Parts: sequence; structure tokens; C-alpha cells
Amino acid sequence: MKLSIERGTLLKALAQAQSVVERRNTIPILANVLIEAEGAQVSFRATDLDIEVVDRADAMVERAGATTVSAIMLHEIVRKLPDGALVNLSEDGASGRLTITAGRSTFSLATLPKEDFPVMASSEYATNFSAPAADLRRLFDKAKFAISTEETRYYLNGVYLHVSTSEDGPVLRAVATDGHRLARIDAALPGGAEAMPGVIVPRKTVNELRKLLDDDEAKIAVSVSETKIRFATPAITLTSKVIDGTFPDYTRVIPQHNTRRLEVDASEFARAVDRVATVSSERSRAVKLSLDEDRLVLSVNAPDSGAAEEELAVAYGDERLEIGFNAKYLLEIASQVDRENAVFLFNSSGDPTLMREGNDTSAVYVVMPMRV
Amino acid sequence: MKLSIERGTLLKALAQAQSVVERRNTIPILANVLIEAEGAQVSFRATDLDIEVVDRADAMVERAGATTVSAIMLHEIVRKLPDGALVNLSEDGASGRLTITAGRSTFSLATLPKEDFPVMASSEYATNFSAPAADLRRLFDKAKFAISTEETRYYLNGVYLHVSTSEDGPVLRAVATDGHRLARIDAALPGGAEAMPGVIVPRKTVNELRKLLDDDEAKIAVSVSETKIRFATPAITLTSKVIDGTFPDYTRVIPQHNTRRLEVDASEFARAVDRVATVSSERSRAVKLSLDEDRLVLSVNAPDSGAAEEELAVAYGDERLEIGFNAKYLLEIASQVDRENAVFLFNSSGDPTLMREGNDTSAVYVVMPMRV
Repeated sequence: MKLSIERGTLLKALAQAQSVVERRNTIPILANVLIEAEGAQVSFRATDLDIEVVDRADAMVERAGATTVSAIMLHEIVRKLPDGALVNLSEDGASGRLTITAGRSTFSLATLPKEDFPVMASSEYATNFSAPAADLRRLFDKAKFAISTEETRYYLNGVYLHVSTSEDGPVLRAVATDGHRLARIDAALPGGAEAMPGVIVPRKTVNELRKLLDDDEAKIAVSVSETKIRFATPAITLTSKVIDGTFPDYTRVIPQHNTRRLEVDASEFARAVDRVATVSSERSRAVKLSLDEDRLVLSVNAPDSGAAEEELAVAYGDERLEIGFNAKYLLEIASQVDRENAVFLFNSSGDPTLMREGNDTSAVYVVMPMRV
Repeated sequence: MKLSIERGTLLKALAQAQSVVERRNTIPILANVLIEAEGAQVSFRATDLDIEVVDRADAMVERAGATTVSAIMLHEIVRKLPDGALVNLSEDGASGRLTITAGRSTFSLATLPKEDFPVMASSEYATNFSAPAADLRRLFDKAKFAISTEETRYYLNGVYLHVSTSEDGPVLRAVATDGHRLARIDAALPGGAEAMPGVIVPRKTVNELRKLLDDDEAKIAVSVSETKIRFATPAITLTSKVIDGTFPDYTRVIPQHNTRRLEVDASEFARAVDRVATVSSERSRAVKLSLDEDRLVLSVNAPDSGAAEEELAVAYGDERLEIGFNAKYLLEIASQVDRENAVFLFNSSGDPTLMREGNDTSAVYVVMPMRV
């Protein structure tokens, strides 16, 4: 293998690969990136056995070939090279080294045989569709804060992506929950996705995927099987196993009959919650909401450290209500609101509360109260 | 106690106090700040028993008094209040609470009796002088990277500030070393400092002091005794115990007869060292410098991971030399060079190497080589 490539192009192509690679590996080759050069292209493939990413870039390929080297070391070297440098990669197959030259710098990195690199088995994808990057970004960005980190409930360690029906018709839906709060986000159902099996996309995949979705105009090719999901742009293909489990029936926990309606400026609300929570104990973080005619009082009472109280002018017309929440959960859902006021729908102080943005039902959040 | 103060002024005054407070305290009152209001001023005092800081600010004091509350909680609350808010602090002495109000927010924090607050005993300072903030900043900033972190060599866990004599006459000198490298920085000797006892200023004090030295135009009042050092601006007084130990005779390790002179662009040198060090092993970080007629080759050979080599055009006219250094140490001393080229003076590959900025001898660095 022998090729030349501009430093910036190479750095971009390596960025996603080195991000998938786990920092601690018991299997040495998993620390490596598989470099394959052919035609006028070079590809960089990295995997942690659950996720595989392939990033392609144009290059001047003098001699086709393939090898593997440390993804992190190669990325570090390229990152430290001066901007605009032309980088040469060459490997003769005999020395067991990849030589990297740029300007007056020469590096040689230990290689491992390309045959040992675990290329992910290809799948039959029954469902193939194309979705706008902006839609996918919204689905995952707004849902992911609610992903559970409890490893024993592995089936909650991801975003449940599936086809469902909203008031406005069929939707592509993302749901995440940890049992304390839940996010349910809808997007227009792309053509071809109708028969998509519901899959649980693991947290790490959600994070890695994020980097493919920055371009608002991009269309992402999505392929789904019972066991895998694949996202592709012209340059990058990200393939991931999905979580082998059954996502619980989340529809049961979304309250349907909450009628006590509070409307509040989301950022003003978030700042006030953040302030009063300062005095709460590290562990409980409980904030009490006391609602009365167009008036919300947020309060915290932590016997050891102190107390805090703040009043907000809000729109509320129902009867008096006192209800407690974990401040962290309130802050997280309030930060999902971008455009309009946050609307909370309460039932009683013991029942789950629903939150959405204005009257938009394409993103709803449920949060469990706590006793205060 | 009852007073009002503008949020920005209060935040600034609390910033340094909360920084001195240790996050984990076995003695509860050490987590608190002592607030004392009298006349038209309020002061905030915090301590970790080794360092004490007092920060004064103007305030509308309605009722004089004093109390103590959690420094970190009070700082957090004030930080989260809206910019420009007027903050009221009041305490009636009976409730055991400090009440903080601003706009529609009310907080009450648990207090501890002001009598329990450990105010640092005042000292007799035999030496008192005034030094430009910029001079003190340079002395400590350029020396502190070399402070030892080895707790057993406690007498190296700070910067040795003392009066000495340079080629150009008497100087105020800061020296720090960890046995592998050493920094020796000189400043003009301020009037009144001639008889100052040499003191070892602890690392934490060096860091806390840094915030007092931002203003280039400021003059800092410095007081020194055998056991304490005090730095004061009109608003802040920082008092610190000095390390009770004898700083070793550093003059012995500063080479006097190194004649092999290398001159190199410091930032180009640093970038090249950083690049070749990428392939070095985590543990040794050894970089070899091979010097020949106006030519420097930096190289690393790490059998497990790979090798790297980079050539630099330099000014060097002596005989061939090969010498190895820890890449981290080279990067740290190269980053001290601001204005001119870095000048290295070598003797042999086994002897300490001296580095300075151009021909400026007011900041010299010594670094021990390592076998490569």
C-alpha cells in the first residue's frame, strides 16, 4: 500500500474511527484501524465488535493494499501535523510497519495483519429508507437524556426506535426511559420505513451517530434488521448491533387524563429550579412546586444546609397543588424546550406529570414525582 | 447583620474565598466563609488553616454584624442569581440562619457561630515591601511547573522565594525543582526586601495568589516572616504559612561550564517534540536529540508501538552529540519561552542541560537527561 492524502481530509476520516475504538482493549487488534486503499479511495474501518464505522476519503493511491495500525496513535500523529501538509502512508507488507511521512517528519507504526481484523458480518436488511439528518438528530437528541444507565436493565440502555401512530398519522418514534422519566419523540415516517421492526439503539451508537447528523441538508440512508441498524452518508457508514431485548410497553406510563395545566417560560423556570436546588442535599435534590392561581412557588427545604424559595408568574387556573420532583429531572426536561413555553399537565401529587412544548405533541416527556 | 450588595461585586468577593475552601473537610467550620459587615464594607474570610484569604467589598450595611455560612453554597447561589440583581443578606443572630434575598428568590442558609471560625494568628512581619504584580506573576508563573508533587520531599512542594545576587546585582529570586528539572527566575529586588528571609511558598498558595496578580498595573504589598508570607491588594489579603523546611542548595545543580550551544525556534521545537513523542511509551516518554552541524534530529524508538523521527534546521556549531530527555520536560520548558529563540547549553549526554531564552539569564531552566 502506498498513498498520499491531504492532512485535513485524513484527520476528518480518522476522527470517527478513533472515537469508536475503546481506550482499553483486551483484544489488541480492536485498538487498530483497518486502512484499505484501492482505486482513488482509502477507507478507515474501526470497530468495538458492537459498532463498526467505515469512513472513506479520496486519496492518491499509488499502490493498493491494506493494513491495520493503532487508531489512536495514527489520529494523534495526524492531528499534530501542520495544517495543509501532504501525508504519505506506505507499507511494504514485509516489515510489519506502516511508514507515515509529512514534511520533515517520519513515523513508523507497528501493524497487525489485516486478516485478523474483525469485519462485521453483513446482514440482510429488510427495511431501507432515507431520512433527513435534521429529523434523526431531533429524534435522538431529545430522547437520549432519558436513557437508563442501569446495566441490569439493559433493554433500557438505548433509544427505542420504531414505527407508531400519532394523532396526525404514522410516525417514526424514538422513546427512552429510565423508569423515572421518559421521552417520546416523533418524526414524519419516511417512505419505506413502514414495516421497520422496532429496535433499541444502544447509547454509544446514539453518541457516535450524532457526528453524522450535523449537516442539516443531508439525507441519511437507514437500514434496519432485527439485529442491526445501519446509518450511511456518502462518506461514512455506521453499523451497530441493536440491544437484544424487549422494550417495555411505554404507552402505559404516558398519562392520558392529566388536566391541570401549567404554562411557564421554560428558561426562566429552569433558572429558578437551578437556583433553589443549590441548597438541596446532594442525594435527594427534591424541589417542591406549589401551584396556585397564576402563581408557582418553587421551594427546597434541606434541614442540614438551609432552605430556598422562589416565586414565578405563570399561567395556571386549576386548584391548589403541591408536587415534588428531582431537580435534575426538571432541569433536563426544561432544557429540551426550544421555541415556546413549557406546558406541564398534572394530575395529583402522586401521579406522573407530562411536559411538552406548547401544544406540540411530537415531543412529550413524562416525569415521576417524588414525595417532599 | 443586615446589608445589601450588588450581585457582581458579591460574586467577585466570594470567588477567591470559595476557592481557598477545601471541598472535603472534617472540620465543618472550614467549609464556611466568615462574613463581617461594618461601616460601609463587608469582608469575606476563608481558610484551610494554612492559607487565609480576606476579600473586602463595598456594601450598604444597615446593621453591622458577623456570621459564617457554607462558602461554596453561598457562592453557587450568588453565581446563579441574575446579573445586576441587588442581594440582601440578613441575620438576626437568634435563628441560626442567614437569609439571602434577591428579586423573588429567598434563601436561608445554616450558620455556624462566628466565634468558632479559626482566624489566623497575626504575625510580626520583619520584611515589608511592595512589588509590581507583573514581576510577581512572572516569578511564580515561570517557576511553578517545576514544583515537586512528591509529598515525601515536602520541602520541594513549593517555590523558594529569596534574595540572591545575579550577574547584574541583587535580585528577588524564585526557584522550584523536583530533582528532574529546575526553574530559576529573577526579578528586580524591590526596595525594602533586602533582608527578606528565604521562604518556600506552597503550591496551593502559588495558585491562589495567581488571581491577585492579573492586573498589570497593580502594586502588591508583600510581608514576609520566617513562618508566613502575606500578599495584599486594596481588596484582597492572602496570608499563607510557608513550608517549614530547608530548600536544597540549588546552585550546585545549575551547570556553569556547558559550552555546546543550540539555538532553536521554541514553538517549532515544541511542536516537533510533541509529534515524535506520540509514539513513545506512556511510561518513559524518552526523546533523543541528535545534534550535528546546524541540524537537529528528534527521534523516538518504542519497540512495541513504532518509531518517529523529525529534522529541524537549528543553529549548532559544536561537535556531534546525542542526548535523551523526557518529552514532557522538554515541552514544559519550551513553553516558558515567550519572545526569543530557546538556547540550550549542553555538556555531555550524561550531564544536566541548561535552557534559557536568548541571552536572557533572568530565567534559566535545568533539565536532567535520560539514557536513550
